[in-house]
Amino acid sequence: MEFQLDHAKEILMRTPATLNSLLRHLPDEWANSNEGPESWSPFDVMGHLIHAEEADWIPRARAILEYGEKRTFEPFDRFAMFEKSRGKSLGDLLDRFGRLRAESLKELEKLDVRPEMLAKRGMHPELGAVTLSQLLSTWVVHDLGHVGQIVRVMAKQYSEAVGAWQAYLPVLSR
Amino acid sequence: MEFQLDHAKEILMRTPATLNSLLRHLPDEWANSNEGPESWSPFDVMGHLIHAEEADWIPRARAILEYGEKRTFEPFDRFAMFEKSRGKSLGDLLDRFGRLRAESLKELEKLDVRPEMLAKRGMHPELGAVTLSQLLSTWVVHDLGHVGQIVRVMAKQYSEAVGAWQAYLPVLSR
Repeated sequence: MEFQLDHAKEILMRTPATLNSLLRHLPDEWANSNEGPESWSPFDVMGHLIHAEEADWIPRARAILEYGEKRTFEPFDRFAMFEKSRGKSLGDLLDRFGRLRAESLKELEKLDVRPEMLAKRGMHPELGAVTLSQLLSTWVVHDLGHVGQIVRVMAKQYSEAVGAWQAYLPVLSR
Repeated sequence: MEFQLDHAKEILMRTPATLNSLLRHLPDEWANSNEGPESWSPFDVMGHLIHAEEADWIPRARAILEYGEKRTFEPFDRFAMFEKSRGKSLGDLLDRFGRLRAESLKELEKLDVRPEMLAKRGMHPELGAVTLSQLLSTWVVHDLGHVGQIVRVMAKQYSEAVGAWQAYLPVLSR
């Protein structure tokens, strides 16, 4: 499927409600369990999504449109949330993500991205030259991937509890 | 994590709203695309969840409580939805799943499952003896796994569109 801005927005606008439906008021046993050492809980993923909203998508889209390849993107800290989420509740994170996403979508409107702008390039610190449409596609896939991670992490809490059915549940071995 | 009925219900009650948030009014390009031959689209997965709701969870829980290991479960048809969903819209399927899940949760209340009943056994046509708690755990993992499948299938539609970022997006190679 080729990138289309209106298709991408259909996903981006849904993610806060999806996460709300899945996680709001969820008991801590589900929200704070992970897949083992060095892995992330649903709570950790929410913090990561918040940091991406603040530091990644719109700031990088602006960098592409304003500076092109001349200025390399700020590196993105994939682990910033361990510090930033401290002391917050899951409800705080859901509220904050919802507000930030709404702002991001407003900012995206203001950028007034027309089809001919999608091929504009920026400079990623590790990947080299990337285009605006690749950045916006990545935003969509990043949302979907982390929703998938959250449900996978939750599913794995019952890896043993399902008994012999484990063989029929591929999510438990992903 | 050990199975606990109230924890399980926290997931089961959320799934219809999660799917609604993710899929309601989604353009066909997202809802009807799959991962390639023999794979399922989000639309197909919704049909499968409906069939499981009708033919699997509560009927099998009842079979365990009424007949124990004496009567083998009816085999479950994993592909029934290709016929049953024909001519329906995604909105129809979301509506139907929401109604069926609400009924299932009411039926589950009526079964009045007390802790000592969780070890009761039934007979699976392929897996052999299974317990009520394994069945109910599987219901939870099945929900989460198929939400994960839906977002993975959607993410993969942008496998090419993300360009070099593909390397940072593990959902695209799962």
